[in-house]
Amino acid sequence: MNEHPLRKQIEEIVKLNDTEFDFVLEHFQKKSFKKHQIVLHEGDYAHFEFFVVKGLMRVSRLDFDGKEHILQFGMENWWITDAEAFHHKTKSTLIVDCLEDTETLSLTLENKEKLSSELPKMRDFFLKKTTNGYIALQKRILCFLSSNANDRYHNLITLYPGLIQRVPKAMIASYLGVTRETLSRLSKTEA
Amino acid sequence: MNEHPLRKQIEEIVKLNDTEFDFVLEHFQKKSFKKHQIVLHEGDYAHFEFFVVKGLMRVSRLDFDGKEHILQFGMENWWITDAEAFHHKTKSTLIVDCLEDTETLSLTLENKEKLSSELPKMRDFFLKKTTNGYIALQKRILCFLSSNANDRYHNLITLYPGLIQRVPKAMIASYLGVTRETLSRLSKTEA
Repeated sequence: MNEHPLRKQIEEIVKLNDTEFDFVLEHFQKKSFKKHQIVLHEGDYAHFEFFVVKGLMRVSRLDFDGKEHILQFGMENWWITDAEAFHHKTKSTLIVDCLEDTETLSLTLENKEKLSSELPKMRDFFLKKTTNGYIALQKRILCFLSSNANDRYHNLITLYPGLIQRVPKAMIASYLGVTRETLSRLSKTEA
Repeated sequence: MNEHPLRKQIEEIVKLNDTEFDFVLEHFQKKSFKKHQIVLHEGDYAHFEFFVVKGLMRVSRLDFDGKEHILQFGMENWWITDAEAFHHKTKSTLIVDCLEDTETLSLTLENKEKLSSELPKMRDFFLKKTTNGYIALQKRILCFLSSNANDRYHNLITLYPGLIQRVPKAMIASYLGVTRETLSRLSKTEA
């Protein structure tokens, strides 16, 4: 039997027995979404953090002039939400939608806190995941500061192997903050 | 008597009694550095995370061509280190130095973990601080994606009020990833 993907990810950081993993799972709700479905609208409260079991989500922001900026993709085994709206219980400034039919395990902030206090190993897990997320964002900022589009592209491939095949080039360019032309040049160098 | 700045920061998130705060403090070492002193060299292990009690530190990276990129400033009450090297026990790819004479409380990873497991409230504190740091970095990335130098500048002023008066304009430009000329225009708009 295949190991559950959430259990696999947690056990890379802390060990759980079967009873503990069942207890963890009880705190999540299964939620499925269709391709193109908007899961979180700008201005709404972000009630859930999503663990992607299957599919592809993204977090983006629309500029005043309607230009779309992609902050994050969420493929299998990624966690995705508007982090500020979710953790601070404020209205979302971002949009979360699905680029493919998507199955998730969804966690409310209340259940995240309950889980952390009742099973302290899960607090270790969340702390480690958040720290790793922080480090990944620092790397992305350093790529922006050095204006090195090549580094940004390779950073993306490392973070999301397989993504290039699943989303239109325009979205990759938006995530990287480069033009379609620059992206074309980068992906040719890669081939 | 003035409240200790570290206690003040912790108590914004979790409450501590005197005995608990003394226990927290036992895990830190006081370390003072001179202006211009390099606290962490590229290629060294990052043994400490620093809580800045007084002074001003920065984290930067040198490009292959010698160009300096500033990832973070650390004024009073900020936490600063090479996060990846510190948490993953790898060699630093960044440089930490002091822009002013600086007093810190320094925490090893071992003591951070010991403190988190012996006083679980401190794990809540570290998780909350890391989550807030993650959210701040997401905002900085969105400013880069929208190529909005004005937003980046105002983000900096919000994050580090008072910083503009303490560091040379060239460093502010390096942190923002803009030219000196763009920065000049932005700070005139502000005045």
